[in-house]
Amino acid sequence: MSKALDGSPESTDRGRSKTRWESWIAEAATAREAAGLTRRLRPRGPGDDTIDLAGNDYLGLSRHPDVRRAAADAALLWGGGAGASRLVTGTLRLHQELEHELADWLGQPTALTFSTGYHANLSVVGALADRSAHVVSDAHIHASLIDAVRLSRAQLTVVPHNDVAAVRAALAARPGVRTLVLAESIYSVLGDEAPLTELAAACAEHGALLVVDEAHGVGVHGPGLVHRRGLAGRPDVLVTATLSKSLGSQGGAVLGPGAVLDHLVNTARPFIFDTGLAPASTAAALAAARVARSGPDLADTIRARVTALARALGVAAPAGAVLSVPMPSPEAAVAAQADLLAEGVRVGCFRPPSVPDGVSRLRVTAGAGVTEEAWERACKAIDTIVGEVR
Amino acid sequence: MSKALDGSPESTDRGRSKTRWESWIAEAATAREAAGLTRRLRPRGPGDDTIDLAGNDYLGLSRHPDVRRAAADAALLWGGGAGASRLVTGTLRLHQELEHELADWLGQPTALTFSTGYHANLSVVGALADRSAHVVSDAHIHASLIDAVRLSRAQLTVVPHNDVAAVRAALAARPGVRTLVLAESIYSVLGDEAPLTELAAACAEHGALLVVDEAHGVGVHGPGLVHRRGLAGRPDVLVTATLSKSLGSQGGAVLGPGAVLDHLVNTARPFIFDTGLAPASTAAALAAARVARSGPDLADTIRARVTALARALGVAAPAGAVLSVPMPSPEAAVAAQADLLAEGVRVGCFRPPSVPDGVSRLRVTAGAGVTEEAWERACKAIDTIVGEVR
Repeated sequence: MSKALDGSPESTDRGRSKTRWESWIAEAATAREAAGLTRRLRPRGPGDDTIDLAGNDYLGLSRHPDVRRAAADAALLWGGGAGASRLVTGTLRLHQELEHELADWLGQPTALTFSTGYHANLSVVGALADRSAHVVSDAHIHASLIDAVRLSRAQLTVVPHNDVAAVRAALAARPGVRTLVLAESIYSVLGDEAPLTELAAACAEHGALLVVDEAHGVGVHGPGLVHRRGLAGRPDVLVTATLSKSLGSQGGAVLGPGAVLDHLVNTARPFIFDTGLAPASTAAALAAARVARSGPDLADTIRARVTALARALGVAAPAGAVLSVPMPSPEAAVAAQADLLAEGVRVGCFRPPSVPDGVSRLRVTAGAGVTEEAWERACKAIDTIVGEVR
Repeated sequence: MSKALDGSPESTDRGRSKTRWESWIAEAATAREAAGLTRRLRPRGPGDDTIDLAGNDYLGLSRHPDVRRAAADAALLWGGGAGASRLVTGTLRLHQELEHELADWLGQPTALTFSTGYHANLSVVGALADRSAHVVSDAHIHASLIDAVRLSRAQLTVVPHNDVAAVRAALAARPGVRTLVLAESIYSVLGDEAPLTELAAACAEHGALLVVDEAHGVGVHGPGLVHRRGLAGRPDVLVTATLSKSLGSQGGAVLGPGAVLDHLVNTARPFIFDTGLAPASTAAALAAARVARSGPDLADTIRARVTALARALGVAAPAGAVLSVPMPSPEAAVAAQADLLAEGVRVGCFRPPSVPDGVSRLRVTAGAGVTEEAWERACKAIDTIVGEVR
């Protein structure tokens, strides 16, 4: 796909001069290449026999027979797409069924689904915050929440990671201002947990609204950590979730009071101006939620695996399904990843700019989706290859 | 879903005081209600026998047997979701197959798919424009492009709708600045066409990059209007498209030079930090593209229908599949929509703030997805009910 990058910096392969845009694009590519940060897409097939410890299908539900069957049946019954935005004719009874299931499972009054988790986050912040609002954001929140705040034009205070005192200070600094506090129940890169109980208490004292992204919490911790900490259903705690990780599908959701979700329906641009979630994805997430609710053993498997592997590698066990293994350099991380792939094990790799602290890491998903035998084999390979480098 | 809205403005139904947030949400809901602008979701079933002239499934392909079957088979073969972001393990051979098909059809060197069309637009503008760039935007562009510009922090010039002289003046005002010009091949609300040839010429003269959103052009005009105007494959014209309208699925795409798409892969946050498009949606769009390419009669049906209905109602025929019928007020538009629904015909309704000029409109999709008999019946009802009001 990078044919144009092979040309000289001054002309294309057809001999004409490069446009200003072509030169700019080529310079950016050259800079990335020099920094060792070029990323390339690596397509996989359906029957890939590599052991996949890189994805986010934590419970292995994307490939569960009930999930595949439900997605296929929905495509046959409803068609390929929702056909319109949710407010026109793109709201299906299937969406409602999924929304009821998610709300019931997560202990929330209502739920609203979106075409991606990214849109769920853009929508919550965009619909609730504006120039007159204040957003207090943990330093490690996901790109979608960062973009959401930028779009909202709210006044922003970024606080150090998991620093409740800093959150309290930020809230106290602007009394009387409508404030959102943004956190994730489990953070993607470090895999650590937010102090949700303390954050909720701080928000309650200052009349702020706490928004918790449960992308890595739901499923891995059953109904999620907001529920586990007894915060589900509170009027001042909203939850956003993705349907594309533990629920093995695509899409996102916001859960909370009906009045807040009505507000989103009426004002959230990425909800109003986007086509509804496709029937197959909706049905897949619904089936996956039902399997996850009925089978807590999947979450137990994740916990046991991630704890054992963390101990073997001498790193702290994460709160979620993903083990982050710090590496000495981006190059070392990439080399270890390649060595593992040669052994039939696919792991992920965090490099700048996707890491909040500049430290490159291997990212190992201790998911429930691989067999015990494959997991054991993968752990041996990781132990050998990572042990040599660290 | 609006239980909390029934309470008094000062207290909830449980007697405790409302929080600052609850009061703010309730006030916004009251203001919407008073302005007659409250929107509510109206779920539909799979076997709904209302004649649907409201959606964007222009060619009726969402329910085409090949599309349903392809989506179902993909769900069974690949599972419910892509399982990870595209750069981790979420790129499927199926994505590549769709990207090759789209690029080949639209006459572009390369294509890249996204989980929604909204993300395709956020990604193009976000990856190419920054504070140092200039964006010249038509006044009628879609919400996703408006959000994209805001996110990019680029310097923005909004020009009057379809005003090429204003575009030229904006380009001439900032010589030497890297500039994107944003347009849609067919605009959503008025249904009119952009002067693509003139815009491309202006961009070429000034070294600007033209981004054309073909959401309403691809399918309705075969490979789209960029292709029809002989602009496909030019290095300074990028196309964005949706997979959720004529292609009856979900998702979006960006088409253009490989070097530009490599740049998106490496820098576009809504691409990097989102799960890949679900297998069923990918396969549905692929099957729909193949049906659309092999059957130009569907596009002919749309053209004949929209022209005849426009003539009957005495309004200008649109460039696309959607007929916009100006109405005297938001209330009149809503009433006519309800009357038509009582006759078994579902049409859309544009009201503020979804209209660029404040004029409420009925929105009638002259799609190819309904039978000739149903279309005739719908036209009679529209003629009667709309004729009384206008």
